[in-house]
Amino acid sequence: MIHPTALISPDAQLGADTSVGAYTIIHGNVRIGDGSFIGSHCEIGHPAPRAQGRPLVIGRGANIRSHSIFYEGSIFGDGLVTGHRVTVREGTQAGLNLQIGTLGDIQGTCQIGNYVRFHSNVHIGQHSTVGDFVWIFPYVVLTNDPHPPSEVMRGVTLRDYVAVATMSVILPGVEVGQGALIGANSSVSRNVDPDTVAAGVPAKMICRTEEILLKDGSGHSAYPWRRHFHRGYPDEVVARWLKEFGAGASVDSVSGATE
Amino acid sequence: MIHPTALISPDAQLGADTSVGAYTIIHGNVRIGDGSFIGSHCEIGHPAPRAQGRPLVIGRGANIRSHSIFYEGSIFGDGLVTGHRVTVREGTQAGLNLQIGTLGDIQGTCQIGNYVRFHSNVHIGQHSTVGDFVWIFPYVVLTNDPHPPSEVMRGVTLRDYVAVATMSVILPGVEVGQGALIGANSSVSRNVDPDTVAAGVPAKMICRTEEILLKDGSGHSAYPWRRHFHRGYPDEVVARWLKEFGAGASVDSVSGATE
Amino acid sequence: MIHPTALISPDAQLGADTSVGAYTIIHGNVRIGDGSFIGSHCEIGHPAPRAQGRPLVIGRGANIRSHSIFYEGSIFGDGLVTGHRVTVREGTQAGLNLQIGTLGDIQGTCQIGNYVRFHSNVHIGQHSTVGDFVWIFPYVVLTNDPHPPSEVMRGVTLRDYVAVATMSVILPGVEVGQGALIGANSSVSRNVDPDTVAAGVPAKMICRTEEILLKDGSGHSAYPWRRHFHRGYPDEVVARWLKEFGAGASVDSVSGATE
Repeated sequence: MIHPTALISPDAQLGADTSVGAYTIIHGNVRIGDGSFIGSHCEIGHPAPRAQGRPLVIGRGANIRSHSIFYEGSIFGDGLVTGHRVTVREGTQAGLNLQIGTLGDIQGTCQIGNYVRFHSNVHIGQHSTVGDFVWIFPYVVLTNDPHPPSEVMRGVTLRDYVAVATMSVILPGVEVGQGALIGANSSVSRNVDPDTVAAGVPAKMICRTEEILLKDGSGHSAYPWRRHFHRGYPDEVVARWLKEFGAGASVDSVSGATE
Repeated sequence: MIHPTALISPDAQLGADTSVGAYTIIHGNVRIGDGSFIGSHCEIGHPAPRAQGRPLVIGRGANIRSHSIFYEGSIFGDGLVTGHRVTVREGTQAGLNLQIGTLGDIQGTCQIGNYVRFHSNVHIGQHSTVGDFVWIFPYVVLTNDPHPPSEVMRGVTLRDYVAVATMSVILPGVEVGQGALIGANSSVSRNVDPDTVAAGVPAKMICRTEEILLKDGSGHSAYPWRRHFHRGYPDEVVARWLKEFGAGASVDSVSGATE
Repeated sequence: MIHPTALISPDAQLGADTSVGAYTIIHGNVRIGDGSFIGSHCEIGHPAPRAQGRPLVIGRGANIRSHSIFYEGSIFGDGLVTGHRVTVREGTQAGLNLQIGTLGDIQGTCQIGNYVRFHSNVHIGQHSTVGDFVWIFPYVVLTNDPHPPSEVMRGVTLRDYVAVATMSVILPGVEVGQGALIGANSSVSRNVDPDTVAAGVPAKMICRTEEILLKDGSGHSAYPWRRHFHRGYPDEVVARWLKEFGAGASVDSVSGATE
């Protein structure tokens, strides 16, 4: 399961049943959990002086697709999944089951919660704080410098269940409240209240998220999305959400979860 | 013409006079037409469970530049050309002479016509439908989820001859009419009439495309662009366009076509 | 220091103490200065018919990170630094100590001054002219075609000390004056005066750059940024800046410079 062309340092610690693709390089300061898959043409554990010797630690069951680059000095919970050609620098601390889409650029020195999904080509600036169950869609940038270039860093904070739609920029120091939705192509310069929709350049508060209806003919609200969208989450999480919203939501939702 | 470091499955079907670069991987479920060129560090025919065994079929004369990734389960007509590090997932169906620029991210499950040009770094969401002779410029995203995240998918439709300028987002379910132009950095939330210019956040109808003058001192309209821009199209296509616009357009146009 | 899997043409001229990573390809028409570092999985000197035989010339002390692609027919001064997976096409002429962030896409046929910094994922269109000490932040695009697609090319000009914030588009033919700041997510369709802030879609003049205060409690202006931001510049450049702004600026600034 280790391709003969893979170049793996004897100091790297790979878990049982881990697979490594062709032409991939794994440096020494790396620990990868059991049952992981590393695609071809990757570079894992790239040296990073700022990591000061801290290892790259990746949990069990990771799936890192081809052409990806991870620096040493970061830590990921079990169930990490990436697309192709992601770049993840030192100082990234992420929880369970992070998903990073193709071309994702995680600049490091950031905190990421559990069950976070980054779609393709997101850019997470240093000093970002991302809660649990957050969704970030393609070409979104989390910034950090209020007057670039400078030595002042003000990271962005996204609370749990936030969704940031395509091509939006979150400006330095902004906090987006739990469950809020940022519309596509927005530029968010002020804090966003929980469970509200903000959109535009600069972004303004548009409505409560619950006012957006699902375009499936059901007449239900599209938000909180955890009421109806369950794909890829563990059963115990979905069960908690179903309980939160009562039995009425259960039938369709469970069906969606098992798709 | 096959580099000795290329890893090519014995099941892959490569046409005559096909060249494969160093450190490239070609999986088994792949058929590539005669006279094709595959650059270095590519992964061609990446396994895709959703492809359900359908092969990757690429026509004759393809030029796939280095670090590109194609999944199994897609089909391309003759004359495919890509830049570097493109990613193309399963379920992509494209016509003749598709061009995908560097960093293009084609999410699969989409229909693409003939002679389509994607410049660098475009993102084509699943369920997109792209007509013939469409141009998409850098950092454009075709979306599909009207209230992300959800299970509702509403693909974008771009009709023939549409041009979408840099950094624009086409929102879910939008149809852009034949020959329309989307201005740079726009967010298109409503259908766009044929041969009109839409721009802004959200995009509004600005004018008829014919009102935009060519900045070459000629006093002619810049649109329909097929009246004056012919580079890279086959002679029979250009001849059809010249006939469409009458003999008056012919001299400069032919000159442009042969440049 | 040359990895045994690196494929290096015997015609390539590599300086003394140059290091080349695993699975990297260096073509023949390449000259790289002493003390340079080329990461893994790169392709350096990719053939380019339009280069008409001109070599790729890279100065001393270059650091080209993994998965990067440089075409022949470009020239770079000493101290070139890149992130990962940059793509640089033929006809790029750059001065000293250019920095190109991860995923940068330099389309070639462009002029770039000294000490220019491109953050991640910038797109520099052909015919761009970039002065000295310019900063370009993530997902910025410099365009060139006023009515795409066409054969008319109008490059963008950025004068010395310009800063273009994240996700902005500079439209064809626009000139941004010395020391100007372009706000995030802007679309710049008209020339921008020196030392002014322009922002919005379309961008409008907002204020003088000196009106933006540093968010460090000092009460000083954030611009011109060279008054307070010195990281990565040579001592003689910083000394010149300190002299320009008088002794009052010196203590903190020197401290910042040596960080």
